[in-house]
Amino acid sequence: MKMSNMLISTLREVPAEAEIDSHKLMLRAGMIRKMAAGVYNYMPLGLRVLKKIEDIVREEMNATGAQEFLASAMIPAELWQESGRWDAYGAEMFRLKDRGERDFCLGPTHEEVFTDIARNEIKSYKQLPLNLYQIQTKYRDERRPRFGVMRSREFVMKDAYSFDKDQQGLDFVYDKMHDAYVKIFNRCGLDAKCVAADSGAIGGSNSAEFMVKSEVGEDDVVFCTECDYAANIEKASSPAEKEEKQELMEIEKIATPNSRGIEEVSAFLNVSSIKTVKTLLYKVDEKIIAVFVRGDREVNEVKVANAVDASGDMEMASHEEYINAAGCDIGFAGPVGIKADIVLVDEEVKNMYNFISGANETGYHLKNVNYGRDFEGIVGDFRKVVEGQKCPVCGGIVTIARGTEVGHIFKLGTKYSEAMNANFIDEDGKEKPFIMGCYGIGVTRTMASIIEQHHDENGIIWPLSVAPYHVSVIPVNIKDEEQVEVAKNIYEDLVNMGIEVLLDDRNERAGVKFKDSELMGIPMRVTVGKKIGDGEIEFKLRNGEMEVMKIKDVCNIIKTEFDKNNIKLK
Amino acid sequence: MKMSNMLISTLREVPAEAEIDSHKLMLRAGMIRKMAAGVYNYMPLGLRVLKKIEDIVREEMNATGAQEFLASAMIPAELWQESGRWDAYGAEMFRLKDRGERDFCLGPTHEEVFTDIARNEIKSYKQLPLNLYQIQTKYRDERRPRFGVMRSREFVMKDAYSFDKDQQGLDFVYDKMHDAYVKIFNRCGLDAKCVAADSGAIGGSNSAEFMVKSEVGEDDVVFCTECDYAANIEKASSPAEKEEKQELMEIEKIATPNSRGIEEVSAFLNVSSIKTVKTLLYKVDEKIIAVFVRGDREVNEVKVANAVDASGDMEMASHEEYINAAGCDIGFAGPVGIKADIVLVDEEVKNMYNFISGANETGYHLKNVNYGRDFEGIVGDFRKVVEGQKCPVCGGIVTIARGTEVGHIFKLGTKYSEAMNANFIDEDGKEKPFIMGCYGIGVTRTMASIIEQHHDENGIIWPLSVAPYHVSVIPVNIKDEEQVEVAKNIYEDLVNMGIEVLLDDRNERAGVKFKDSELMGIPMRVTVGKKIGDGEIEFKLRNGEMEVMKIKDVCNIIKTEFDKNNIKLK
Repeated sequence: MKMSNMLISTLREVPAEAEIDSHKLMLRAGMIRKMAAGVYNYMPLGLRVLKKIEDIVREEMNATGAQEFLASAMIPAELWQESGRWDAYGAEMFRLKDRGERDFCLGPTHEEVFTDIARNEIKSYKQLPLNLYQIQTKYRDERRPRFGVMRSREFVMKDAYSFDKDQQGLDFVYDKMHDAYVKIFNRCGLDAKCVAADSGAIGGSNSAEFMVKSEVGEDDVVFCTECDYAANIEKASSPAEKEEKQELMEIEKIATPNSRGIEEVSAFLNVSSIKTVKTLLYKVDEKIIAVFVRGDREVNEVKVANAVDASGDMEMASHEEYINAAGCDIGFAGPVGIKADIVLVDEEVKNMYNFISGANETGYHLKNVNYGRDFEGIVGDFRKVVEGQKCPVCGGIVTIARGTEVGHIFKLGTKYSEAMNANFIDEDGKEKPFIMGCYGIGVTRTMASIIEQHHDENGIIWPLSVAPYHVSVIPVNIKDEEQVEVAKNIYEDLVNMGIEVLLDDRNERAGVKFKDSELMGIPMRVTVGKKIGDGEIEFKLRNGEMEVMKIKDVCNIIKTEFDKNNIKLK
Repeated sequence: MKMSNMLISTLREVPAEAEIDSHKLMLRAGMIRKMAAGVYNYMPLGLRVLKKIEDIVREEMNATGAQEFLASAMIPAELWQESGRWDAYGAEMFRLKDRGERDFCLGPTHEEVFTDIARNEIKSYKQLPLNLYQIQTKYRDERRPRFGVMRSREFVMKDAYSFDKDQQGLDFVYDKMHDAYVKIFNRCGLDAKCVAADSGAIGGSNSAEFMVKSEVGEDDVVFCTECDYAANIEKASSPAEKEEKQELMEIEKIATPNSRGIEEVSAFLNVSSIKTVKTLLYKVDEKIIAVFVRGDREVNEVKVANAVDASGDMEMASHEEYINAAGCDIGFAGPVGIKADIVLVDEEVKNMYNFISGANETGYHLKNVNYGRDFEGIVGDFRKVVEGQKCPVCGGIVTIARGTEVGHIFKLGTKYSEAMNANFIDEDGKEKPFIMGCYGIGVTRTMASIIEQHHDENGIIWPLSVAPYHVSVIPVNIKDEEQVEVAKNIYEDLVNMGIEVLLDDRNERAGVKFKDSELMGIPMRVTVGKKIGDGEIEFKLRNGEMEVMKIKDVCNIIKTEFDKNNIKLK
């Protein structure tokens, strides 16, 4: 492409609206332009990158035997009412009516649509397994669209839905999707880590996220500093700590008139918070849940919700509900004698001896409380992991970092097939619900994440696999006919090799051209200047040093870069 | 692709909802499925065809130097309010609000968006010309979505917008787009005729449609039976007929008490309707327009609207307005003494002598009326062309057929750039509005139109260029290991040549496989049966005769078909 014919929209200034590097650089390099909050137009250069990422996704999905499909973005409300998500989805769903007042949404995701397709098209186990995917525009009315295409309201997603006759089939395709995702992100040059994720009420280790570390990420991810363990904070665990066994002492009521909550009580009694137990009361599905964790721990509400199989939203108990359950004012509740529908006891509490907790009486706490003797409940892992704790796999130390999700693989099981009556006839002649999985990749978000990981102060540094163009050829002086001629020849030779080249034939200073080429992140640059007198040009990798070389060698050097990166030329 | 792994959704029955062949066949071959009225999902087979058409469009657009872009489907209302189309677009526009109650539409077309991009990004004539295109999903809430993807509400369109500094530049890109469209439809195997179209208030010969003949088309197209002339009925013209010159006779008022309108009057007076003049009264932009055409002609309202430069909707005058203008009851209006804001006289009326018209007095007509002596007005072409009239180019006879528009090229001029203040600095230092053009192709509609032109009673007959797969290889008896082995070898040889092949390894009767292959329209079929004993297979073009040939020859024969069709293998 000759740059004199292109829409070049590079900006020297950093746009005020952009907060993170990828957003700033996509605007400055002329990749995207804002249409409305969280809604972007892709300029020619940006679209080329987007299409390359899409093609990598498509190739790897096809290689797994998945079949490409394309569902409509408009989805009738009826399908979402069947699954129960029309009301549940809330304000994040864009809704509209047609001229006949019929309700539609703009699909934020497509589980319902693909379940519907399966129940209509698949009758028999003989047609299984099946994995359908699409690369399609999705719509989510984010409360706070931010960071350019990193968190936008209209975005491109790859979503796949698998249908199997049994759990074994699902496990197989889930693993295949995992491996395909590893390949996809590798090929995109993106360091994305597979992280165990919470899978909600379905339970089990049925969900994993592909996360990239990012200060502006929406999730906390727990990483082991020694082994490969990584998990979303919602899912992460750490071995429960254990006190040394002690003799059980007699329970004792002590007046703590002005001390509410763990901090005040431990200060007042001058004991460490690890000798106390914290009480939290929640309400979900009309039930009161009491949760007990060690005084210095935080409750992991996702683990609690999973443990009680919550179907509705979980919230803190109201003041009135607290008084009803504990019989006392806030700050004095404890495990002994609490009136709750479900009692959840963190396993660390079970491992404690003679601890302090609220007495369920205003102004009092209990000393020498012990699990088993004084109260009982469902024992499990209900606490949040914190930095410095031990890795559940290797015992190393864990750290916590913010991350952005670029992919998600999920064993849905029969959640949607049961709700929507999507069945097949199995080999034994019986009707059974499909065993489903779903697998997403945020394509536009992947694009922004690549930039987050590949840039410097001068601009983007695209990996060769997704670069909008591979090489820019820059004649230093456009008025020097010989330079222009040599540049054109190199350009044409490279194009004939199947390489995507920008010929910067604009009547601009060389410095402007270099700056634009770096800002746009073109991986290789060939500068044609005065040295052509000696048969030489300058070659520079975007993130390498400038080399002077013979004109006749440049095509080979460039070809070598493709080989190094395992990229086939078309 | 092995068919045992594919989602095959062929139907034997003709779906009740489908009225036209392409719709029936797309459903029966498992190409599309309905999600809601006018909203379709593309199944794997259908999507492959859609992508091939998109790729042909993309290649030809790129070859013209146009640059691919991707705008959002969600467009904020403000842009449409600037152009004045937010209100004008009416019920055909899907509208929605975000969580902040901000108004958006789902783009039915993108003139506003691209004009906005141009005014933001293009400052100088040096950046011109520019032609941006996208292949994108469009939304129109059709009053009567019908015929599958032929007239749907969510559909894929290629839309391009050109920006030039002068009319010469626009003329140049318009012609380039015309030529690209001819190539695109040719490559798709579609017989689409370029037809002069009305370009509304902009005037001139600035708009052309690419139409395919279709009984269910929405437009009437006038075709010359002898030359290449073709025009939308709104635009078509025919030479005005002329009476032989006669001496002007004295005007005479005659009582026609119960005769209203031309038919009754010519019957009552026993004269041919070609000796009478018809009066029609319209109201537009608060003005009354009187139109006079020969008694046997129909008024072409589009020509009338263009002549008066109508900005609002044109409608028939009300009873009251008729009485005010003509001074008489309906059926007795005429040109002599009529009180209208604008008087339009068809050129054939000017060519008539001593004709009959209403007297503008209830119960009376006038005899021996003559243009020039008795009344005057703006003379022009205001009549509809009818079958059997003469071609304006060669004088041959014209016919009229229904057609469906698959493409449209349009010189917009400064309509949007002026309304939206989209200017550039020209060479002379002055600010000028962009000279714009827009160019659309209905991609999904093209797909349906190809089927309308290429099918038989057994199914679709895809042109090789857009076929979902090129060849199906069918082992007759899946339990015969030798047949399966030979079929697999042919399959693999063809795949290695870059050919897209279906291997029908399903455990089905050969008849079922043949039927599916024909229904899906696969252009070539290789049948591997008992003849392999003699080293032979059967080869059949979808619309040709079956040939027996040596196994070793089949790959070459298939390769030849690609050469014949000028299709390069990847």
